[in-house]
Amino acid sequence: MKLIIDANIPAADACFGSFGAINRVPGREITAAHLHDADALIVRSITQVNGKLLTDSPVRFIGTCTIGTDHIDHAALAQRNITFASAPGCNAEAVVDYVLSSLLTLAERDGWLLSERSVGIVGVGNVGRRLEARLTAMGVATLACDPPRAEAEGAQGFHSLDAVIKHCDVICLHTPLTRDGPHASYHLLNAQRVDEIAPGSVLLNAGRGDCVDGLALRSRLASQGDIRAVLDVWEDEPAIDAGLRDLVSLATPHIAGHSLDGKLRGTWMIQQALARHCEKPSGLSFVDICPPPALASLHIQHPLAPEDALRLCMRAVYDVRRDHDTFQRQALLQGGAKGFDDCRANYPLRREFATLNVQLSGDAVALEGMLRGAGFGVTLTV
Amino acid sequence: MKLIIDANIPAADACFGSFGAINRVPGREITAAHLHDADALIVRSITQVNGKLLTDSPVRFIGTCTIGTDHIDHAALAQRNITFASAPGCNAEAVVDYVLSSLLTLAERDGWLLSERSVGIVGVGNVGRRLEARLTAMGVATLACDPPRAEAEGAQGFHSLDAVIKHCDVICLHTPLTRDGPHASYHLLNAQRVDEIAPGSVLLNAGRGDCVDGLALRSRLASQGDIRAVLDVWEDEPAIDAGLRDLVSLATPHIAGHSLDGKLRGTWMIQQALARHCEKPSGLSFVDICPPPALASLHIQHPLAPEDALRLCMRAVYDVRRDHDTFQRQALLQGGAKGFDDCRANYPLRREFATLNVQLSGDAVALEGMLRGAGFGVTLTV
Ligand SMILES: NC(=O)c1ccc[n+]([C@@H]2O[C@H](COP(=O)([O-])OP(=O)(O)OC[C@H]3O[C@@H](n4cnc5c(N)ncnc54)[C@H](O)[C@@H]3O)[C@@H](O)[C@H]2O)c1
Ligand SMILES: NC(=O)c1ccc[n+]([C@@H]2O[C@H](COP(=O)([O-])OP(=O)(O)OC[C@H]3O[C@@H](n4cnc5c(N)ncnc54)[C@H](O)[C@@H]3O)[C@@H](O)[C@H]2O)c1
Repeated sequence: MKLIIDANIPAADACFGSFGAINRVPGREITAAHLHDADALIVRSITQVNGKLLTDSPVRFIGTCTIGTDHIDHAALAQRNITFASAPGCNAEAVVDYVLSSLLTLAERDGWLLSERSVGIVGVGNVGRRLEARLTAMGVATLACDPPRAEAEGAQGFHSLDAVIKHCDVICLHTPLTRDGPHASYHLLNAQRVDEIAPGSVLLNAGRGDCVDGLALRSRLASQGDIRAVLDVWEDEPAIDAGLRDLVSLATPHIAGHSLDGKLRGTWMIQQALARHCEKPSGLSFVDICPPPALASLHIQHPLAPEDALRLCMRAVYDVRRDHDTFQRQALLQGGAKGFDDCRANYPLRREFATLNVQLSGDAVALEGMLRGAGFGVTLTV
Repeated sequence: MKLIIDANIPAADACFGSFGAINRVPGREITAAHLHDADALIVRSITQVNGKLLTDSPVRFIGTCTIGTDHIDHAALAQRNITFASAPGCNAEAVVDYVLSSLLTLAERDGWLLSERSVGIVGVGNVGRRLEARLTAMGVATLACDPPRAEAEGAQGFHSLDAVIKHCDVICLHTPLTRDGPHASYHLLNAQRVDEIAPGSVLLNAGRGDCVDGLALRSRLASQGDIRAVLDVWEDEPAIDAGLRDLVSLATPHIAGHSLDGKLRGTWMIQQALARHCEKPSGLSFVDICPPPALASLHIQHPLAPEDALRLCMRAVYDVRRDHDTFQRQALLQGGAKGFDDCRANYPLRREFATLNVQLSGDAVALEGMLRGAGFGVTLTV
């Protein structure tokens, strides 16, 4: 078997070496010529996969190690009967880490407790489900809003967006962008809904920028300043509205999902799919390709206030303020769009909460449920 | 022996119980009546100790568990031949933690390395010496400025304030406030010197607020914004200049020295002095009264960039941004002076860097020198 693989995909040798001969090509430079005798193609979002690229190619399997598939011409693949795989949810845990890091940072800054808030989750798919699971395990009240799922699965347990805006003081958006149909998410938070958000609330968007009317949010923040916004996604990325950026409590350049673990999980998911396609055993588990983190563990031997303990563990792994600060600095140094892209291109290595082993002893064992719920590994020691 | 002890002094029983009968009285309420048959008096800065308080008292020993002695009428004590002790330097390590936490936070925010900066230390006494020692051990260049010491000890190794301003891009003030004499420190950084600070520099003051001309600093920050200021001490505390506070990168309400360890060390130093006074063995070492910290250790198993490792360890123990955020919030909620005092009165428990045991294994052992230099406990493990 011959495989063409984007040169920037991490752990490609470990994942695909056993399938055959690998040719690694920078994603932008992959052409039809590379594919004339290839059996499988593994890409990231940088490679446009369409009929032209596939002309005269015997490729039978195409995988993209990303959650998005906008770069894939599905019709062209179907026409050629090519097996296709993407990696939905591969970085969903990283987004949840981002959300928890952001909310606990605002809680400290403004002096409130996450455990006393109720969190509305709008879009309860790969990201939203995991966020719901972790918050619930931490004992934080959540309200789920996902009309497409409510339609498919029954309304029970789901709430309308307006109910979420009315009853929640934290609103987290994790919806994809759709412009048509009954559940179109374009400007889901339109000017009217932005105005209805209760004073003291937090609005966080880590789904798609266009799901929020940015001008409306900007004018609410500028004129009243009575709500907090956390934005990882923006309208018109990378040339985002600098005025809005300056009013937002935590502003980051679409990096919520950028963990090393997420990238490796994407590669590994395609490896699993390729193994299924070849009808051979995968022989590889995710931990085989996931390097140990620099910070192995920390040991808490006396109780801290639960949310202080959370912040301690969380920031030891990932502190969203670093990304906010870098983004502000790059925007000043290089201007908006260039700064946005540069932060993404030079994003530092980041691990997920699950890589940290928190050792608890003495009275600190009372923190077990909270920390485990938040996604950390927990060991009880003496 | 009968002892009158301020009720707010921590670990008083452990420290003084073996000397005799203890009577604990709130510091503000200690009167001459309490002292009519007392042999020793142990106070904090809240109790004014003067001739009136000591009238008819047989007290032979007075200790204040603080570095300051403004509340003590030394002449009244001398007249009565009372042995006196204070606790100079008891919280100096906490101030150094504060300085390192602040500088490493600004370094991350603005994208520079502390190891590439040179730090001028103005006032090289209990605090300044320890700062100099830790920075040197971390491999950071320092320049010492202390004209009184230079006069007493010889000029070698000391630099003028103007040389520090010229050659250093970080200037740390740790001078006491004096208004007279050749080395008066009132407005030591006057308008002219504030203007001479090179663009890109950091000015940090954790000595006394009046050593810097606040109006001059405020106008430099407002008009040019080309230097960063970190202020823990202010003119006119607690009714400080809110305009200056808003322009400062890290603003805190005179809490740099507020560690639990510092307070306990103050008590313990007075215990040592009382034992000497009584010519009996102290029988108590500092670790006996110092409770173990909530965070016992963390384990780094792969190398990080040295200053990232420093930030990780530092923030796990103390993150100055928490104090900055609380101060901003309280100032908004309650107004300046009340917010200032409230932050101090309700200051959360804080431990010193030395209480953290950093375990290093694998290639991370290369971090040993840097982390030990910064003041952490370090253990090499397998
Ligand atoms: N910021 C980042 O770095 C980052 C990382 C990962 C994913 N994302 C984005 O987050 C979004 C969610 O990702 P996912 O993997 O969970 O997607 P998903 O497809 O698994 O889930 C999306 C969910 O949103 C629901 N939904 C659709 N329209 C809705 C509407 N109008 N109102 C409420 N719910 C609606 C869907 O029913 C679905 O359950 C996507 O847009 C994705 O691109 C961003
Ligand atoms: N922010 C806080 O929480 C906090 C905590 C502890 C100490 N402090 C303050 O920090 C200052 C230093 O404390 P310390 O314990 O190191 O005092 P210290 O007396 O041990 O040292 C002060 C040093 O400053 C030098 N000095 C005096 N005048 C000077 C001048 N004009 N220029 C340069 N150097 C001069 C002295 O020679 C001495 O070496 C004090 O004012 C103290 O009140 C603040």
